[in-house]
Amino acid sequence: MNKASRLFWPVLVTPKNAVVKQTEQLSRSQKLLTELGLIKSGSNGTYQLLPIAQRALDKCINLVQQNMQIAGGQKISLPVLTPTQLWKKTGRLEGDISEFYMVRDRSGKQFLMSPTHEEAVTAMLASTAPISYRQLPLRLYQIGPKFRDELKSRFGLMRAKEFLMKDMYTFDVSESTAKESYAAVSAAYERFFAQLEVPYVKVQAATGIMGGSLSHEYHYVSAVGEDTLLQCSQCGYAGNLEVLDTETQTCPSCQSTSLSQVRGVEVAHTFLLGDKYSKPLGATYLNNAGKPDALTMGCFGIGLTRVIAAALEVQSTEQQLRWPKLLAPYDVCLIGAKQGSKEQLKTEQLELQLLEQLSAICGAQELLHDERKELTIGKRLMDAKRLGHPLIIVVGAKAPKLELHMCGEEPQELELPEVLRMVQAHVEHKQQLLQGTIKTKEQDLQQRLGHVH
Amino acid sequence: MNKASRLFWPVLVTPKNAVVKQTEQLSRSQKLLTELGLIKSGSNGTYQLLPIAQRALDKCINLVQQNMQIAGGQKISLPVLTPTQLWKKTGRLEGDISEFYMVRDRSGKQFLMSPTHEEAVTAMLASTAPISYRQLPLRLYQIGPKFRDELKSRFGLMRAKEFLMKDMYTFDVSESTAKESYAAVSAAYERFFAQLEVPYVKVQAATGIMGGSLSHEYHYVSAVGEDTLLQCSQCGYAGNLEVLDTETQTCPSCQSTSLSQVRGVEVAHTFLLGDKYSKPLGATYLNNAGKPDALTMGCFGIGLTRVIAAALEVQSTEQQLRWPKLLAPYDVCLIGAKQGSKEQLKTEQLELQLLEQLSAICGAQELLHDERKELTIGKRLMDAKRLGHPLIIVVGAKAPKLELHMCGEEPQELELPEVLRMVQAHVEHKQQLLQGTIKTKEQDLQQRLGHVH
Ligand SMILES: [Zn+2]
Ligand SMILES: [Zn+2]
Repeated sequence: MNKASRLFWPVLVTPKNAVVKQTEQLSRSQKLLTELGLIKSGSNGTYQLLPIAQRALDKCINLVQQNMQIAGGQKISLPVLTPTQLWKKTGRLEGDISEFYMVRDRSGKQFLMSPTHEEAVTAMLASTAPISYRQLPLRLYQIGPKFRDELKSRFGLMRAKEFLMKDMYTFDVSESTAKESYAAVSAAYERFFAQLEVPYVKVQAATGIMGGSLSHEYHYVSAVGEDTLLQCSQCGYAGNLEVLDTETQTCPSCQSTSLSQVRGVEVAHTFLLGDKYSKPLGATYLNNAGKPDALTMGCFGIGLTRVIAAALEVQSTEQQLRWPKLLAPYDVCLIGAKQGSKEQLKTEQLELQLLEQLSAICGAQELLHDERKELTIGKRLMDAKRLGHPLIIVVGAKAPKLELHMCGEEPQELELPEVLRMVQAHVEHKQQLLQGTIKTKEQDLQQRLGHVH
Repeated sequence: MNKASRLFWPVLVTPKNAVVKQTEQLSRSQKLLTELGLIKSGSNGTYQLLPIAQRALDKCINLVQQNMQIAGGQKISLPVLTPTQLWKKTGRLEGDISEFYMVRDRSGKQFLMSPTHEEAVTAMLASTAPISYRQLPLRLYQIGPKFRDELKSRFGLMRAKEFLMKDMYTFDVSESTAKESYAAVSAAYERFFAQLEVPYVKVQAATGIMGGSLSHEYHYVSAVGEDTLLQCSQCGYAGNLEVLDTETQTCPSCQSTSLSQVRGVEVAHTFLLGDKYSKPLGATYLNNAGKPDALTMGCFGIGLTRVIAAALEVQSTEQQLRWPKLLAPYDVCLIGAKQGSKEQLKTEQLELQLLEQLSAICGAQELLHDERKELTIGKRLMDAKRLGHPLIIVVGAKAPKLELHMCGEEPQELELPEVLRMVQAHVEHKQQLLQGTIKTKEQDLQQRLGHVH
């Protein structure tokens, strides 16, 4: 079980009379995560994740991995360091390279701190004996840090210079089977985003520097988003404005004029790459005539630290974090009476009993016991609400009745068995999300909006 | 369940008449891992982990994390990029910096691709409001890539320029409580190494560039080790030769002359650091008088990719990998009759039944089904043995009897229920290792040898 008194959670203390110099515009998630001691700014554009945020990240990683496995993904690790020489072969060092971190080793050889790994993974395949068409499709993914020296790094984890990505690369015999891989991974992405229960928009996107013939982005709608999305309320079409004429007045799909613009935060991106990388790097497979052919590729990325920040950005209130249920650092926070209060003695037994019963229902790891009894219930309740625990249980003045605060709802006074039932229902809801057996609010919304496939 | 036909596992194919130019000396683990398609060399000194090796790594990460949690560890993530400015404050840029990868961002600010994170974690604590003595000890750990531009990078994952580490940093009020943290983390390390069941030697070590007052290393004994260890057969003392006079003839502990030298591969290292980092970086806590005092630190590292390679180095034969049970990529490999063979029809039912029963015992994820029926049993058995699966089950000519190959033992012909019992015993052994309820061979050995605490 987790004890709040032992948790490293350095809340930002600002003296009341302090003049805070706001040197940059902060987004809501960045402000809350920083003030609550969940992240800290390392140096300009890099962030340290502290234990509570790390728990959410680990849950996000597990959830993404589960979906990658379902999509036939095999996990690998590619080095952060990629020789720039590989990027020269694909022409990606010819454009603007100001976002790349480049470093030389002791022999003078130059490397990129990889912002993405198309070259690295393709060169790796090129250096093995060509695999047979029978072994395809091949879907490889990894989870690791990526580096982009952004000119406008901002909003904390939403646009950091160093961030955690899940990137997948698919290899197929042809464009048509590559599209099957594209559809399989896209389905995994949609399942993942549905599991988070945060409304998202999937849009047609530009292929840009990545190249290829087909691309989609997944966005969370937010005023701090850096992309402009066009949505058609008639047919459900959605596109990133950058793929459209900025003067577009009619829907490219149904020609209606019911278009509206929203701002989006890109949280995932998929590309059908064709042979843009496999040709120059010589990555081939043996076709059914035993002859080498260029592999047809796709690539697929989810910004893991970014998706967490963006989900919080969209859902949180000015004062309180709101987590996707599957990413909340803890399911339940339990707060007991203050030391020396008149309730303390009479409620102690009840608190112990609850700890045991809650652990049995949601697992000890999912339970945060705020046993900082030197603090009032009110102070601890405020901390708990700001952290946005899905379920907060207070054992106090109303004992044996308990106070249950469910995130975003009015508190309720309940008997112990009722509280346990609510916790049980929360755990079951999470299970159903994991198994994909419930139709989520998000799926409803997607159906209503419709979206590009 | 995992199917061998779908697994990316690019075995190195060397034409029989090829003249192999051996440009570097390969260690046994490097040779096997490379030939079997478990790792690939990226560029000089960096490695790609392919799916089978990645499974072992993920198991290793989970095992280490479990032990870090038991030791009171809280997980965090620190950026790869650390401002060199922090390292200037602690004086660590004054010596030999040729092993550091340094990079500048677009504004010209210089960063280290961190080889270790003492400065980063200490500066992070210094930048928070000082925590109270009541919140100490604080034990923070992370898992992430580290970078060292080694002059002599070699032996694959054993001494790579980019490698995966678990690093923990402890913060205490005083030297004496810091020693308690040191003991707690050391106990977790010993449990972890015991769980791997590979004999290790814990030695007194030099503090070196890390600084501090006390240090121990954990070594695997191997001819390719780069350290020389001195062991006393009388009292069990063990030390790294670098802490001793090279002419040492008598045991520093018992003065006996029963000293012997062995070569060791360092797989973990622990340091009691004192205030070497907290003083210059200003990391303080509030003592019980409410006044700030410098934190007393410890740091603790396990080379995750290295420990896997080193364990394989020590245990494997010239031709076959031998994994620690808890790190083996799969528990069981099942091989069925060849397509079109006279056994195929009669054994198919048995194979399906086994798949189901095995999955129920060890979990589908722990089962590799080698269903490449176009290959002979012999060829697949050779692959399986080279990969070193703890249990290999062959359904073939002797059906309904099965052939069971346990790693390193003579094959046995057994009835189905007996095979299932053996698999069950393996799973239980793993459970007991995880729970620490059995006395391992390693603990026996340690007791026999004795070792420094
Ligand atoms: Zn339309
Ligand atoms: Zn001795």
